[in-house]
Amino acid sequence: MKTYQEMSREELLQEKTALEAEYEKIKEKGLALDMSRGKPGAEQLDLTMGMMDVLDSRTVLASENGTDLRNYGGVEGIPEARKLMADMIGVKPENVIVYGNSSLNIMYDQVARAEMFGICGNTPWCRLDKVKFLCPVPGYDRHFAITENFGIEMINIPMTEDGPDMDLVEQYVNNDPAVKGIWCVPKYSNPQGVVYSDETVRRFAALKPAAADFRIFWDNAYAVHHLYEEEQAEILNILEECEKAGNADMVFEFCSTSKVSFPGAGVAAIATSEANLADIKKRLTIQTIGHDKINQFRHVKFFKNQEGIRAHMMKQAQIIRPKFELVENLLEQEIASRGIGKWMNPKGGYFISFEALSGCARKIVEKCKEAGVVLTGAGSPFPYKKDPEDSVIRIAPTYPSLEELKEAAEVFVVIVRLVSVEKLLESK
Amino acid sequence: MKTYQEMSREELLQEKTALEAEYEKIKEKGLALDMSRGKPGAEQLDLTMGMMDVLDSRTVLASENGTDLRNYGGVEGIPEARKLMADMIGVKPENVIVYGNSSLNIMYDQVARAEMFGICGNTPWCRLDKVKFLCPVPGYDRHFAITENFGIEMINIPMTEDGPDMDLVEQYVNNDPAVKGIWCVPKYSNPQGVVYSDETVRRFAALKPAAADFRIFWDNAYAVHHLYEEEQAEILNILEECEKAGNADMVFEFCSTSKVSFPGAGVAAIATSEANLADIKKRLTIQTIGHDKINQFRHVKFFKNQEGIRAHMMKQAQIIRPKFELVENLLEQEIASRGIGKWMNPKGGYFISFEALSGCARKIVEKCKEAGVVLTGAGSPFPYKKDPEDSVIRIAPTYPSLEELKEAAEVFVVIVRLVSVEKLLESK
Repeated sequence: MKTYQEMSREELLQEKTALEAEYEKIKEKGLALDMSRGKPGAEQLDLTMGMMDVLDSRTVLASENGTDLRNYGGVEGIPEARKLMADMIGVKPENVIVYGNSSLNIMYDQVARAEMFGICGNTPWCRLDKVKFLCPVPGYDRHFAITENFGIEMINIPMTEDGPDMDLVEQYVNNDPAVKGIWCVPKYSNPQGVVYSDETVRRFAALKPAAADFRIFWDNAYAVHHLYEEEQAEILNILEECEKAGNADMVFEFCSTSKVSFPGAGVAAIATSEANLADIKKRLTIQTIGHDKINQFRHVKFFKNQEGIRAHMMKQAQIIRPKFELVENLLEQEIASRGIGKWMNPKGGYFISFEALSGCARKIVEKCKEAGVVLTGAGSPFPYKKDPEDSVIRIAPTYPSLEELKEAAEVFVVIVRLVSVEKLLESK
Repeated sequence: MKTYQEMSREELLQEKTALEAEYEKIKEKGLALDMSRGKPGAEQLDLTMGMMDVLDSRTVLASENGTDLRNYGGVEGIPEARKLMADMIGVKPENVIVYGNSSLNIMYDQVARAEMFGICGNTPWCRLDKVKFLCPVPGYDRHFAITENFGIEMINIPMTEDGPDMDLVEQYVNNDPAVKGIWCVPKYSNPQGVVYSDETVRRFAALKPAAADFRIFWDNAYAVHHLYEEEQAEILNILEECEKAGNADMVFEFCSTSKVSFPGAGVAAIATSEANLADIKKRLTIQTIGHDKINQFRHVKFFKNQEGIRAHMMKQAQIIRPKFELVENLLEQEIASRGIGKWMNPKGGYFISFEALSGCARKIVEKCKEAGVVLTGAGSPFPYKKDPEDSVIRIAPTYPSLEELKEAAEVFVVIVRLVSVEKLLESK
């Protein structure tokens, strides 16, 4: 097959006419499909329904340390939940605080406290003229929304296949004291599915920040979210690497069971150094008397241990892997062969990051919407929603059924072709 | 019986000798008792164990509006939980956002957002030279800890039997634009058990604040926490009264099921005007994708409605009323008759606020501790932990068993007598 770039103006015009006809037919169908939401589908959630049975009115609601789970207290979380969450990301339970259902809320609080009170005795960020965060792109829109919310200047850092461009990261972090943080999703990154290489993690750990209160916001959101039994990515333990490098306090690591158990009713945690934990607890005890210990216990009872989580995640993989493969195969057949888009086939996580020809993303999303297929807004994976190339589209294959997904993906590829043809014709 | 004030120096010296002997005997017992914690006792929590049975793996975990409770979303809370919480405090469901398990966290967030972003477009408090809060005293130490945490200047407002001294409140609020808030527990106040009179509520609603962003922090923590079936205090609806008075946006009202269901795993809510809700949601959607909807649903399933909550609270009252009465009777017999202490017999809530002779509270708490009876720290019910009279001691009768409470209260009255005698001897 000829790529679109290889086609003559006449061939492209022919292609355009055919695709426009196809597009009109699609629009007539009145579809209402959605590939925008990074949410588990109902079938995945059904796998966790057993969690509703592990506690009943005869259960002794007490932690192994004797704490009555029903009553006040326990701001660190119960020990058995600290262990469960620690094991999920390979850290020590004593480095973990278990919270309620939202790791996003923990991240927000970490930024908010840094703004208001400063980190470990450093100047509150709100008193500084300028605070900057590095933002590997494409990345997670809700991370960027937090830093934007606080007026923090966000700097794009291109992603490579091994993680963020570390030359650039080092240059910023080691020289600019206004750079206070970086957003990372180190395993199966949102949206590309990149797994940070060992070298990348080690270079992070070896940073020599110009700012004493620089912190890596290490959102290990997809620590156990593998798609394939036989290809499970492992990344180095950033807490351990930082400690070895003499940077013990440089990381806040986050995780949750949002896409393990229930997004609406999971548990979330932070893992960090002893000094950071003490700094956090000093303020956290003002915020709350403690998070929901019964739900922490429920998770421990249901999953029991890492083996339980691993087995559970493999069941989820069986449901969502076909969805990823469907999209990937269609992109391979319809797009790659025509030279009008790139993506990585992720081995885990929740997204496929599709890179269209420059200047096409916004139009593709618009035309999809007109045809009844909702995609994540173009620009979303970038700070200030500005994709400098207007090329990245985040595809979320998990939420629709396989049938709906097929229909939506078929519409998507037709529209990518149409918009690409139009784009190429501009310069022919 | 003679009061201590009526006794001669010789009589007091005799009394002192006898009490000292009694105190020594008590110390020999090696007691380990606790009247410090405003926590439900285990027997109360047992009443809610049925909540662990209302959901199981066959339950359709969907809200009445169709939302899958297991998945992401629903930052306002599910409609049925909004109704349950609204009914608990007599407001409209559309004025309510239901959160996670901690109303303290909601209050903290309201202050934190005011500090960082300002309320409804007003200047963020952190940019002002001075921010002040009025603090009716005695009050709740965790309220004061929040404002202290943000460096907000706290001003004591004496409590009367009808609520805070409203002359003083009006004087401050209506004239000083630095006064941005007031902490209120309007029903069965912590720790005195005061119920705000209708006039007090109306005077609150009719305030003419010098600051556009002045807010009443109305912590209706004990809305349904009556001790007596036949004497259930009602207070006016502050949202309604404020609206009538043209001050619709002046109140943040808070409530929770912490002492209704489980303190560790309840649900909490804010109720406020439409404009305030919009202002909150603008930031809340940055903080979290939503709170635990399954636990909200669990509460609705268990309590069903206000009748359910009312009946449940009456069962709790049967457990804790005897504890309050035990303490009150002992105080009546041993203290009131001797003229060395005052308190109100509360009709609800969680505390008895004991007012010793001036300059005695700290010593009483110390001596109780030496005798193995832990009380809330003297000063705790005041901003900066400074009780200007050193006289108030918060007694929390709910957590110990009736037997333990009896023993602790008996120790307490002996020590109050001893410290009072010592005090009176200083000036005889």
